[in-house]
Order: sequence, then C-alpha cells, then structure tokens
Amino acid sequence: MAFAAPTADQLLALRACAGIDELAAEPRFAAASPDLVEAIVEGIGAFATGEFAPLNRLGDTEGARLANGTVTLPAGFAEAYHHYVEQGWGAVAGPEEFGGQGLPFSLATCVMESLGAANLAFTLLPILTVGAIEAIGHHGSEAQKALFLPKLISGEWSGTMNLTEPQAGSDVGALRTSATRIEDGEHAGRYRISGTKIFITFGEHDLAENIIHLVLARTPDAPSGSRGISLFIVPRHHVAADGTIGPRNDVRCVSIEHKLGINASPTCVMSYGDNGECIGELIGRENEGLKAMFTMMNSARINVGSQGVQIAERALQAAAEYARTRVQSARAGSADKAPVAIIEHPDVRRMLLRMRALTEGSRGLLYYTAGQVDRGALGDAAAQARADLLVPLIKGWGSDIGMEVASLGVQIHGGMGFVEETGAAQHYRDARIAPIYEGTNGIQAADFVTRKLGYDNGGVLAELMREIAEDAAGEAEGLTALARECAEIGSWMVNEASLDDRLAGGTAFMTMSAVAVAGWQLRREARVATGAAAQTKPVVARFFNEQIVAEARGLRTQALAGSSLLYALDSAALAG
Amino acid sequence: MAFAAPTADQLLALRACAGIDELAAEPRFAAASPDLVEAIVEGIGAFATGEFAPLNRLGDTEGARLANGTVTLPAGFAEAYHHYVEQGWGAVAGPEEFGGQGLPFSLATCVMESLGAANLAFTLLPILTVGAIEAIGHHGSEAQKALFLPKLISGEWSGTMNLTEPQAGSDVGALRTSATRIEDGEHAGRYRISGTKIFITFGEHDLAENIIHLVLARTPDAPSGSRGISLFIVPRHHVAADGTIGPRNDVRCVSIEHKLGINASPTCVMSYGDNGECIGELIGRENEGLKAMFTMMNSARINVGSQGVQIAERALQAAAEYARTRVQSARAGSADKAPVAIIEHPDVRRMLLRMRALTEGSRGLLYYTAGQVDRGALGDAAAQARADLLVPLIKGWGSDIGMEVASLGVQIHGGMGFVEETGAAQHYRDARIAPIYEGTNGIQAADFVTRKLGYDNGGVLAELMREIAEDAAGEAEGLTALARECAEIGSWMVNEASLDDRLAGGTAFMTMSAVAVAGWQLRREARVATGAAAQTKPVVARFFNEQIVAEARGLRTQALAGSSLLYALDSAALAG
Repeated sequence: MAFAAPTADQLLALRACAGIDELAAEPRFAAASPDLVEAIVEGIGAFATGEFAPLNRLGDTEGARLANGTVTLPAGFAEAYHHYVEQGWGAVAGPEEFGGQGLPFSLATCVMESLGAANLAFTLLPILTVGAIEAIGHHGSEAQKALFLPKLISGEWSGTMNLTEPQAGSDVGALRTSATRIEDGEHAGRYRISGTKIFITFGEHDLAENIIHLVLARTPDAPSGSRGISLFIVPRHHVAADGTIGPRNDVRCVSIEHKLGINASPTCVMSYGDNGECIGELIGRENEGLKAMFTMMNSARINVGSQGVQIAERALQAAAEYARTRVQSARAGSADKAPVAIIEHPDVRRMLLRMRALTEGSRGLLYYTAGQVDRGALGDAAAQARADLLVPLIKGWGSDIGMEVASLGVQIHGGMGFVEETGAAQHYRDARIAPIYEGTNGIQAADFVTRKLGYDNGGVLAELMREIAEDAAGEAEGLTALARECAEIGSWMVNEASLDDRLAGGTAFMTMSAVAVAGWQLRREARVATGAAAQTKPVVARFFNEQIVAEARGLRTQALAGSSLLYALDSAALAG
Repeated sequence: MAFAAPTADQLLALRACAGIDELAAEPRFAAASPDLVEAIVEGIGAFATGEFAPLNRLGDTEGARLANGTVTLPAGFAEAYHHYVEQGWGAVAGPEEFGGQGLPFSLATCVMESLGAANLAFTLLPILTVGAIEAIGHHGSEAQKALFLPKLISGEWSGTMNLTEPQAGSDVGALRTSATRIEDGEHAGRYRISGTKIFITFGEHDLAENIIHLVLARTPDAPSGSRGISLFIVPRHHVAADGTIGPRNDVRCVSIEHKLGINASPTCVMSYGDNGECIGELIGRENEGLKAMFTMMNSARINVGSQGVQIAERALQAAAEYARTRVQSARAGSADKAPVAIIEHPDVRRMLLRMRALTEGSRGLLYYTAGQVDRGALGDAAAQARADLLVPLIKGWGSDIGMEVASLGVQIHGGMGFVEETGAAQHYRDARIAPIYEGTNGIQAADFVTRKLGYDNGGVLAELMREIAEDAAGEAEGLTALARECAEIGSWMVNEASLDDRLAGGTAFMTMSAVAVAGWQLRREARVATGAAAQTKPVVARFFNEQIVAEARGLRTQALAGSSLLYALDSAALAG
C-alpha cells in the first residue's frame, strides 16, 4: 500500500495548533522560520515515505530475531537507520551545544509522527533515544552530557529505558534490581548493577554502535518503594573518557517476546550482571531516579499518543485507497444498478469520515500539546501547566483512537482486512500496544483526575474549558456544551467527589476532555486552512463536532457515576 | 488459562430471555423439559470445556495447514471432533426424521455458544454444517434430504457455504461461477460446475468423511445479478444413491489464507471443475438460489452474533482471573501502602464490570432472539417478525462488543496482554472477524434500517420499544428514554428520512436498539435470578443501564444526522 506522510495537515497543525510562527518569534526558536519549518516537514515526510515506510510490512512478517545474544533486524533496517543518522533527523530538538538544532519540540513531534506513521515499530528506536537524551540532558553531570549526548543526539548510539520487572509493572516502586557502589579500583564511584528487566524496547539490536541503557535500580540501603529508586547509565559497551568504545559490559538480552504486533521492535528481557561485572554510573543523586523519569515522561507520553495518530493516519490512507478502488454493489436506490466504488456507499463514507475526524482531531490535540510544551520550555508557567494537563489526554485518547481507526480500517477492507497481506490487520495489531505502554491508559486517567486536575485546584482545566466553550459559542453548540460539562465534572471531582469516585469516572472524563480539545483545534485549523484543506477541514471539523462530540457527551453519566456500584460486589463475586 | 462454560448464566438466559419453559409447553418442543435442558446445557459445557477449550491455543499457534491439496488440523482436533459426533451434539435442533433431536433452536444456540467460547475457530465447522442442513432441509428434494441430512446432522459429513468470489463479496449477485446442465449419461440432470470461490471456511479439512459444498453459481442463460443465481450441492466425494462414498469430485482447495485470527479454521480458495468434471446437483429451482441462502441467513447471523458473546465470555474469564491474581500497587489513598490484586483498583473494576455487562447483555439479546426464532417456527408470525428485526442487532452489536470486550481483556493484562503467550491477544485477533463475515456490520445496519424497519411500516420496532420503555418505566429511566428515542428515530426513518439518511444513521441506530433490548433482557434476568446470580445480576443490570445505556443515548445525534455532510466532499477530496 502506498503511503505518503501527511505533510499538508502537519504544516496546518503546526501553524494553527502548535502556533509555530509565534514560537519562531521568540529568540530561542528564531531559527524556526517558515521556510525551515516547511523544509523539515517536507524533508522528514519524504524520508519517512521513501525509507521507513517500505520496511513496515517486512518488519512485521520477519520481525526482530535473537540468536546468540544478538538481535537482528530484517534487511534494509540498518541502511535506513544509517540514513536517518546521516541526515540528522534525530537532532532536530536536541540542545545545540551537543550537536542538536535546538528547534521546538513541536517540530520534533512532526519528525516522530512522520517516521512512526511510516513504520511504527522501527520508530520506537529514535523515540527511546530521545528519552535517554532528556534524562541525561536534565539530570546528568557535565561530563556525562559531554560523553553521551552527542552520540545519542546524532543517533550513532541509541538509548533504552529500563523500568519494568516481572513484579514491577505499573508499580515501578516495586522494582528489585540492585546497584552497589564500587569504592575502589578502576570503577570507583560507579555501581555494580544486578537484576532482570523485562519489556525493554530495542534493548538489543544491530543498528547502532552502542546502546546506552538507562536503568532504574535500588541501592542497598535505599528506602522501600518509589523513594528508594536511583537511575543509572549502563552502556552496552563501556565508553572511555575520550568517547571511544571499549569492551562489552556485563549485560545481555536473554529473550525477546513473541508479541501481537510491532514485530520489528525487539521487546527484550535484559539481564544485568550475570557475572557480577555490570558497571553503571549514577545519574543525578541516589534515590532521585523517579524524578529523572518524570522529566522524560511528558515527551514519552506525547510520543505514544502520537503513535495513535500515526497508526490512524496509515490505516486511514490504506482504507481510503481501498474504498476508492474497490467496486462493489450499486448505490442503494440507484436506477441503473451499476456497481460503484464502495466509498460511494453511505456507511463506508461515514466510516472514512469518522476515521478522518478522529485522526485529524487527535493530530490537532497532539500539536496543541506540543506547542504548550514549547511555551513551557520558554518559561511560560501557565502553558507548562496546560501541557501537563494535556499529556494524559493525548496519550490516552490518542492511543485509543489509534485502535479504533485501525479497526475501522480493517472493517472497510471487509474480508480482505482480515487477511494479513493487505496490511490493515497489521495496523490493528500494532495499534494495540499504545494504550498499554508508557503508563496504561488507566494510569493516564488517574494522573488526569488526581494529579493534573488538582493543579490550581481545578483552575487549569476550568480555564481551558472556558476558552473552548467561548470559542465554540454560537457556532458549535455541542462543543460548547461538552466543554461546560467538562468544567462541571472537573469542579465536582475537585470539590465533592471522593478519590475513588474520581478514579471511577477518570477514563470517561479523560475521553470527554480530549474530545473537547480536539474539536476546538479542528475549528482553529478550519479557520486558517488554505488550499485543498480550505474545503475539507471545515467538513471534518463539523463532522467531529456533530458526531464525535455528541458521542462524548454520552459519557457524562459515566464520569459522574461514582464508585459505589463498582464495589457493590466483592471481588470474588465480580470475577465470577 | 482455565476456561469453564458459563452454564449458570446460559440457563438463566434460556429461562428468562428465550422463555424455554414456555416453549416446552408446546407439543413440538415437549421434550425440552427442565431436566433435559439442564442436562444439555451442563453436558455441552463440560464437553466444550474438556475437549474444545484445551485446543484453542494450539489451534492458533499451529493453525490449519495445506499440503498437497489436503488441509490438516493440529493434533487433537480430529479426536475432539469425533467425540462431538459420537455424543450427538450437532443433532440437538435437527429434524427428528433425519436423526435430529428436534429441540428448540434456543438450545442449539447454547450448544454453539459453549463450543465457540471454548474454541471459536474450531466451532466454525459445526456452524457451517448447520447452514448446509438448513438449506437442504428447507429447499432440497426428499431424495436429497434422505441422502445428505442424516450424515450432516450427525456431523460425519460437514458442510460449507460458497458465496464469495474475488469480484463478488458483499454483492453476491456479481458472482460468475457457472453451472451447466448435463443432459445425457451417468450424470444426466446434474450440473457441471466451474469457477473459483474464496473465503470458504473449512472448505477442506481432515476431520469428516465427506464435505458437502453448497455452491452458488449461475446457469448459462440466467438473468444477470442476484436473480440469476442457483444453489448446488457439490460433494467433495461423490455419494452413491445408497449413501456410500465414491471417488473424489473435481473440486480442490488451492490455497488457504494467512489471517489475523481464527487460525484453526482453514479459509480456503476453492477451485471447482479444473478438469471440467465437477458435478453438482441443483437445490430447489434454477435462479432461486438466493432465496435458499436467505433461509439459512438468520441462524448463521445469529451464530456470528453469538461469536461476539463467545469471545467476550472467554476474554472476560481470562481477564477476571488475571485481575484477581495479579498484585500491583496499593489502593489509591490507602494508609498501609500494601499492594493489592489489581481487581481492587477502581478503573480495573470498571473495565471488568463493563466487560461483564456487555457480555451478559449481549447474551440476553442472543437468547431472546433465539426464543423468538423458536416461536416463529411454531407459527407465531409476530415473533418471527421480531426475530427478523433482532437478527441484525445481535449480529452487528454482538460482534462489535466481542471486539470491545476482547480489547478490554488485553488492557487488563497490561503488557502481558500484548505478549501472545497469555492468550488475551488471540481473543483480540479472533474477535475481529465477526463484524466482517456473514454480511459486514454495515450490511446488518442497512438490513435493519431498510428491510427490517419497514416491517409493518415501522410497527414491529415501535412495539418492541414500547414494551421496553414500559418495562423500565419508573425503575430504569435511562432505558425508558433510550427505548423512546429508538421509537422516535424509527418513526423518523420510516416516515421522513431519505434512503441515504437512513443508511447514514443505520450503524448508530442499530447499536442503540441492540443496547435497549439487551438492557431489557438483563432486567428480566435480574428479576428471576436465583443462587449467586440473585446477588450479581441486579448489579450487572444496573451498571448496564446506567453506563452502557447512557452511552448509547449519545449516539442519537449520529442516528438522526442524515447523509448530507457525508456527501459534502466529493470522493476524491474525502479520500485525501
């Protein structure tokens, strides 16, 4: 299936939702001129389309393979990755002093979106590397930054995040991997790491020279739970002070998972210190590892929400192409009974327009969130608070609509959608991971209704919803009503609801809030759209506000239901 | 994962929704005494649990394999199938004169439900055989019935349905397979069949002695389109007049599909008449093949709707077990910070209760529909009309909730849900087919809002919704409101809406109507539930009526939206 990066819609979202022109007016982002923005968006689009997309199906059918401790990607992946490094796509938002371009996160979001839409599984490699860059950039020593950042920013080295252990999934605080300080000898001041980590994305592979593992572990006398966790840099190959790569560290991939999807992304079980010789160095201070993790959490979660947009885009393109070319049955009620392309049938058209509304709406939310992150980085505390509030919305709802749109894509293909060769089934499988990793969507909902909603005692949400309601007033009454209902629910949660009541309504409220923001962004896009989008965007925005918004309002009862019915049965009775 | 057939809930649904005791009061179904019903429900439950369920994962990982024209199922399938035949499970609802037990369809529904929940892919074999039994039973000659029915009812032979061709999917009328009458010789009066059929479930396999293909084809001078289609019996091995199996017919499986799921069900490309020697015999009259297909369509569609209930049940059991045993994180706000089983967390509890409400609600709809089919067979025209109306609801909504519940099952498993070894991912993959085959859900929606809604000029739907609204009045106001809204939408569709407007709102209206009936059936169950269900069912019914019903009401805008916005963009602009 031919794929093309959604360049025009990305440029519109950068302008209308991220406000890239406003950002470029700030000295720090002055380089982000309209010409450069366009060059980057079109450049990454062409690169993703030309080099990552053609490997998507091969990555699924062949997958990553482990043999003798080495993980091999299918033919073509290494070459495409080397081109990615050569062309500097990983460096867009990295700090300039370490070889980055220092451009807005909004633009980096666009780079990741195009790559991921082309090849979701492959793009986990750059996404994880960005996480390592952020952790080291914010919490590493000057020496660590100088040693690791240039190679990570260029992509010559890749990064991983090592949190999960069999007994420590959502509850990171339960981890047991140990780190013992070495007092003497060659590695004095470093730590000996020992333990097993699971679900480590690209924990081992053959694409980069070195892999920089960021590992959460516990020092011997650390407090229990999440207050006793420290973060360590554990390179696969030791790195000398001059940056040269030394011998292999005592870390290895012992198995990779057989998964539902994203088969080109090796999900590794990593064993640290089998021979007692795994050496790591502390980032930041002991017992402050979780703080470092939180630093990178925002961008990681935004990138996973973006994966929903990405898979939706790819599924939409495939379904649109199929619907345009598959001829089947006459239009209902037609006189001539001539069969037509299925895109002419009302319910297929409805599915396609729904796919498009969800895809473009979530893209609007994505770029709006990224733009708020950029403003936060410039010191705008209100924008930072809003970004924090939006992160669970784009992660949760973005990944949810990724699944829905991929499933609609299968449906439009009919029987051919269930056959693997069309690729629609791969989207359906690949999409399923995003609601799970980087904090399940249940955890996003909890983060939204407990931590984030609490900002300014509900004021950050209230102000956001007030803006949306006002913007839509008189023109999109459903959206105004939804925004007001969100404000009411937020107020109820902050002022009246118990903790359990908030958590019980969290998922529904997260969806409602995300839909409200997305509907708003589509309206903002429709107002400034030019070219072909001047015709299409108002229709997409109207469909979204008439159908998706109306549906989201049906969740109000769930958001306000409270928790008592959930606990009316004891666990044994509920489990049957 | 341990599986147990949901015997208690099936018995309750048979009583409260199918009205099995009322049916047993009719002479034709007098055999269906409470004791026999219980024996069958428990017997098939034990059989499905003991023999079909253990093969479910093996069927997925090994799948059906084609070599040298022969399709082989994994080890154990042949033995389990032979036990199914020996124990007579296929004969429950078959006509007594050909070896069946003549029991209500409601009981056959229960047999298929238990088998399919245990092993969805495997159970397609008996489901397809039932289709062949119905087609031959209703439209075959006495000789054909005598020759084919006893072996099909026992299951010694299996059946297939051959509709689809590459250019003829949803539009069956576009098929090209040809059938030419043989005037002289050994096969005089029979037909020479030639053509290729795709997506033929269990088109070839090694479990039964013979396979009876029912093939739609076109005679040389037939009218074009669906009025020129005839139905033929094409046995894999010729059958002599005395029932003995002769040489192989000129039909073969040329390939099987590599699919997203139901891997133990071989989906075959069948080639008829490669050597010009494929012999078939006409069922009924020439050009009346579609009528024969319609005969079997109701039960086939109910069985596919049931597949949604089945996969939901299996996913629910797996998720409940995981949630009960997986310990992770303390309860929010708890003082002691001790980690608990995840079933204790509000959002997990919500997901489980939602899974349960959707599963049990769709089961209620399933058995209510089956009970109406049984009344229709007894000559109750109003019940038959209601059954016809309900068929697209159970097929469409049942298969939709199968996907949703399977997806929630993956979500509850967290990262382990994305790893194939837990089985949750298989449910997610297997569930995806049901909304597609046996008429896509878009076709179900169209059938509902055009053909079925038109019965008695909307009166059949109006009466159903009136009953629901009345039953819920004063006790479940949301359900009353939903039923009234459904009645209004139905009235609008029948009296005011254009054909395109009806089709544009069909999917939303189908969901709303199905939810209304399901919510009603849960209430009926709650009123008569005994034992453990006396405690649980009222909670499930209340959750359904508070949350699922409220959500369905959010679809009203979509149902009434009309088609104009769908056609605001031309197809090229919509496809991007």
